[in-house]
Amino acid sequence: MAVKVLAEASPEEVRFAELQRRMAGVSQKMLSVTLQAMTRDGLVGRRVEPTVPPRVYYRLTPLGLSLEGPLAMVRAWAEEHMAEIDGANRRSQDEAATD
Amino acid sequence: MAVKVLAEASPEEVRFAELQRRMAGVSQKMLSVTLQAMTRDGLVGRRVEPTVPPRVYYRLTPLGLSLEGPLAMVRAWAEEHMAEIDGANRRSQDEAATD
Repeated sequence: MAVKVLAEASPEEVRFAELQRRMAGVSQKMLSVTLQAMTRDGLVGRRVEPTVPPRVYYRLTPLGLSLEGPLAMVRAWAEEHMAEIDGANRRSQDEAATD
Repeated sequence: MAVKVLAEASPEEVRFAELQRRMAGVSQKMLSVTLQAMTRDGLVGRRVEPTVPPRVYYRLTPLGLSLEGPLAMVRAWAEEHMAEIDGANRRSQDEAATD
């Protein structure tokens, strides 16, 4: 999801606060941990503007951008089959309830 | 990884013990939780043979099989870029050490 939002903005960078706004439902902590891991892996570049408070900007590196294509395939699959997966989950719950 | 191993065996089913053998480094607990979630989501079918001890077999459903293509794209990307990602991680560690 972070890759998708950053890929849409690419080659522009995105502020942390703006990323959070565009990824509703992801906690600040989870987003921060994810971006740290992606930075460590070389998928994301991080730039701090020394204002008060500091502004932190992220952008995809060429490596991170190359991941967007494969991830988009999985995302498309998930969107196409979401109803089917929800249905399977509901049936599993019903079976558990009648066990 | 479970999808890959099950897709390779498809349409044959695979015993839990055999899955574990083919996924070295994945704990029994982790494999078991993963297969439970995949069964709930309708990706995997589960069959118990009432022997003593019972034998449990898994196979991909058509839905699970349809996920293999998109996942293979991500797997290919990861294999292609593994060295680059390892390099980025080493540089991050070196920077952390000299901070």
